[in-house]
Amino acid sequence: MQHHIAEPVSLESTRNETSELQRLCRDLALRARDAAGHLASLTRAKKDQWLLRTAEAIEQHAAKLILANQKDIEAAPSYGLTPAAIDRLRVTPQRVHAAADGLRQVASLPDPIGQVREGSVRPNGLQVQKVSVPLGVIFFLYESRPNVTVDAAALCVKSGNAVILRGGKEAHHSNCTIQALLQDTLTECDLPRDAVQMVPTLDRDAVGQLLNLGDLIDLVIPRGGESLIRRVAREATMPVLKHYQGNCHVYVDRVADLDMAERIVINAKCQRPGVCNAMESLLVHADIAKSFLPRVAASLRAHHVELRGCPETRRLIPDARPASDADYAAEFLDLILSIKVVPDLDAAISHVNRYGSRHTDAIVTNDLAAARRFTTEVDSAAVLVNASTRFNDGFELGLGAEIGISTDKFHARGPCGLQELTTYKYVVVGDGQVRE
Amino acid sequence: MQHHIAEPVSLESTRNETSELQRLCRDLALRARDAAGHLASLTRAKKDQWLLRTAEAIEQHAAKLILANQKDIEAAPSYGLTPAAIDRLRVTPQRVHAAADGLRQVASLPDPIGQVREGSVRPNGLQVQKVSVPLGVIFFLYESRPNVTVDAAALCVKSGNAVILRGGKEAHHSNCTIQALLQDTLTECDLPRDAVQMVPTLDRDAVGQLLNLGDLIDLVIPRGGESLIRRVAREATMPVLKHYQGNCHVYVDRVADLDMAERIVINAKCQRPGVCNAMESLLVHADIAKSFLPRVAASLRAHHVELRGCPETRRLIPDARPASDADYAAEFLDLILSIKVVPDLDAAISHVNRYGSRHTDAIVTNDLAAARRFTTEVDSAAVLVNASTRFNDGFELGLGAEIGISTDKFHARGPCGLQELTTYKYVVVGDGQVRE
Repeated sequence: MQHHIAEPVSLESTRNETSELQRLCRDLALRARDAAGHLASLTRAKKDQWLLRTAEAIEQHAAKLILANQKDIEAAPSYGLTPAAIDRLRVTPQRVHAAADGLRQVASLPDPIGQVREGSVRPNGLQVQKVSVPLGVIFFLYESRPNVTVDAAALCVKSGNAVILRGGKEAHHSNCTIQALLQDTLTECDLPRDAVQMVPTLDRDAVGQLLNLGDLIDLVIPRGGESLIRRVAREATMPVLKHYQGNCHVYVDRVADLDMAERIVINAKCQRPGVCNAMESLLVHADIAKSFLPRVAASLRAHHVELRGCPETRRLIPDARPASDADYAAEFLDLILSIKVVPDLDAAISHVNRYGSRHTDAIVTNDLAAARRFTTEVDSAAVLVNASTRFNDGFELGLGAEIGISTDKFHARGPCGLQELTTYKYVVVGDGQVRE
Repeated sequence: MQHHIAEPVSLESTRNETSELQRLCRDLALRARDAAGHLASLTRAKKDQWLLRTAEAIEQHAAKLILANQKDIEAAPSYGLTPAAIDRLRVTPQRVHAAADGLRQVASLPDPIGQVREGSVRPNGLQVQKVSVPLGVIFFLYESRPNVTVDAAALCVKSGNAVILRGGKEAHHSNCTIQALLQDTLTECDLPRDAVQMVPTLDRDAVGQLLNLGDLIDLVIPRGGESLIRRVAREATMPVLKHYQGNCHVYVDRVADLDMAERIVINAKCQRPGVCNAMESLLVHADIAKSFLPRVAASLRAHHVELRGCPETRRLIPDARPASDADYAAEFLDLILSIKVVPDLDAAISHVNRYGSRHTDAIVTNDLAAARRFTTEVDSAAVLVNASTRFNDGFELGLGAEIGISTDKFHARGPCGLQELTTYKYVVVGDGQVRE
């Protein structure tokens, strides 16, 4: 079963093979650029027509997708995938419908292109507008879930960008079948086929070659494990939209509604512990630790959460294990929680800024001054008051859909949707103005 | 005269010296980060107070600045500076007043921090706001003009960012004196001195060390020659705000007011030929070439512009030299112009997209459809209709002041002012919401 995925004839890179691969990647990017030129001026009607037609097509061809996916599922154990990972990889009729619904939802979102972000008339009569335009060509790398192939293509095309997809080898058959279907509907709707391309080889060097094409590719979005993202950030010659980790905090302040705090803590930790906006660390103000920690510990234990705490925490929850510095810095992505009792708001804020990953952090408080200081001084993409960290998500914050979350500060921060896949140009209209 | 600028004791980098330099640069960046933490929550009143006090102080100390500048002017020939470059380097009473006025103007601009860019209430009652916050620490590299030291510090501090300045060695004495003055007024106004730091050594390796500190520095802005900018883009581990070149075009369409076209061409080429938004290439529709080219050539010649043209151009302007492909790709920054007669709008657009530098391009036309296609299909930071390319400038487009122009698409495009030195965070306020 190990060998039925198409691999390049040899993985040794002789000079000729490298230049062959180089040529192939450059050609891929050039065709994407060409497609991007067409996509930039497409009307919303044309783009939505493709999204809706594709939704229909993947539902019509559900059986074919599930069959292709079966090959990936069979090969999965040979890649060492865990049962949870195999479950994420699986395409089911329900997941095909979910993907189709995703396409219909993207169709229902406003066109991000052509929006006038700002506009004014200068004293000399020049009409100045900042108008949204596509970025151009996006290189999207991801792992496991085949539905992501559909989502990414939908968001890129709707925002007028051409996309080069690179999924994981473990989803190769599923992704090839999906991409062939996407290209068919592109042709059917009279859009350029090269709007959605897939890297046609599993050779890992192809990724390096593409990351080197900063002159042709405008953005790379890596989604997956931290080592993949670090490799991309290191090698990319174009901007990268990314986050490494989500080490998210909930701080329960002195003046907090403890029922609300418990609900938020349980939701932030347990509702989906394996995602980046799940809570990894709980901070509790010393004044309420005695009344809050034992009750929340009981509730967390009932959800099978392992607790690791500071000495004060362990005094109040005797069965908690001691927490190390590494525990406070860790993104567990699992039913494990580090806990610390802090003397005041200042200590909470410094702890978050020191150990956090600038992703998502929440305070539970009814003290307006504390809420104001926490949201101002915590340097994270999203700061929440009296709400679960799980809300840092494109759908939940009203972006409609997301292609990823950024913890960088440049261009886009937090969840990235259609708007974040655009840039702008200045369009200036005069009637003969010259500079004095 | 060659040796009176402070140089590190030795330029040879032994391992110890490298680690010493490394320590020095890291310390510089850490102090900037610390200052940035304070600057982020400063009120507009505090920031403007510093700007206005500094304007006053540099006018009071004009004589001292001019004296320090004198040392740079005396050393300038030993650096091989041209008379034009020496003129740019010179500090005069008028230029001191201009710098002070610049500070007062930045004070009068709205505070870009704390602005709510978008806001909504979600169906579940969550209040979501995208709020402008500073980027953090900015590393600013520039050449020659000492006024830039003042401008850059003003824009960075007003936008809540700490700045690390690195001017050219030829302006070292001037810059040191200016920076000392800036730090004095920072202290006087009770702001952190480290808000404005200067790299304390002229060792070129310090730049490399700082470019390596992507964990502490949020943005680097190189302003100067193309080789400096390329070095920075190659070595930086943080985002770069930059443009390499401004190869700007004016296309005179078939349906153009030829008087207006001539005014715009002369202004775009001659008003200040050495800047990035000056025109370098003129495209003329074949149908009007015969009536337009001879008259505009006479006018350009009167402004001492050397003309280089395609065969058709040379048929109409016999004394024009032949233009090579390299001429069409060149940013002359001088009184030289490449000219091409094109058969139609399509040819004009492809020429601009092929040879241009995505900086600034203009069409002169009274044809609405042509104007619409040119502004949509030309992929440049600024596209203008019936106006001089010289208007792609922060002041002229209404940004109030600029720290540079970007031809990149990520984060900011075109002139970059206070707004472009900010990012945002999501601030989400609820009353106990959790995810279902």
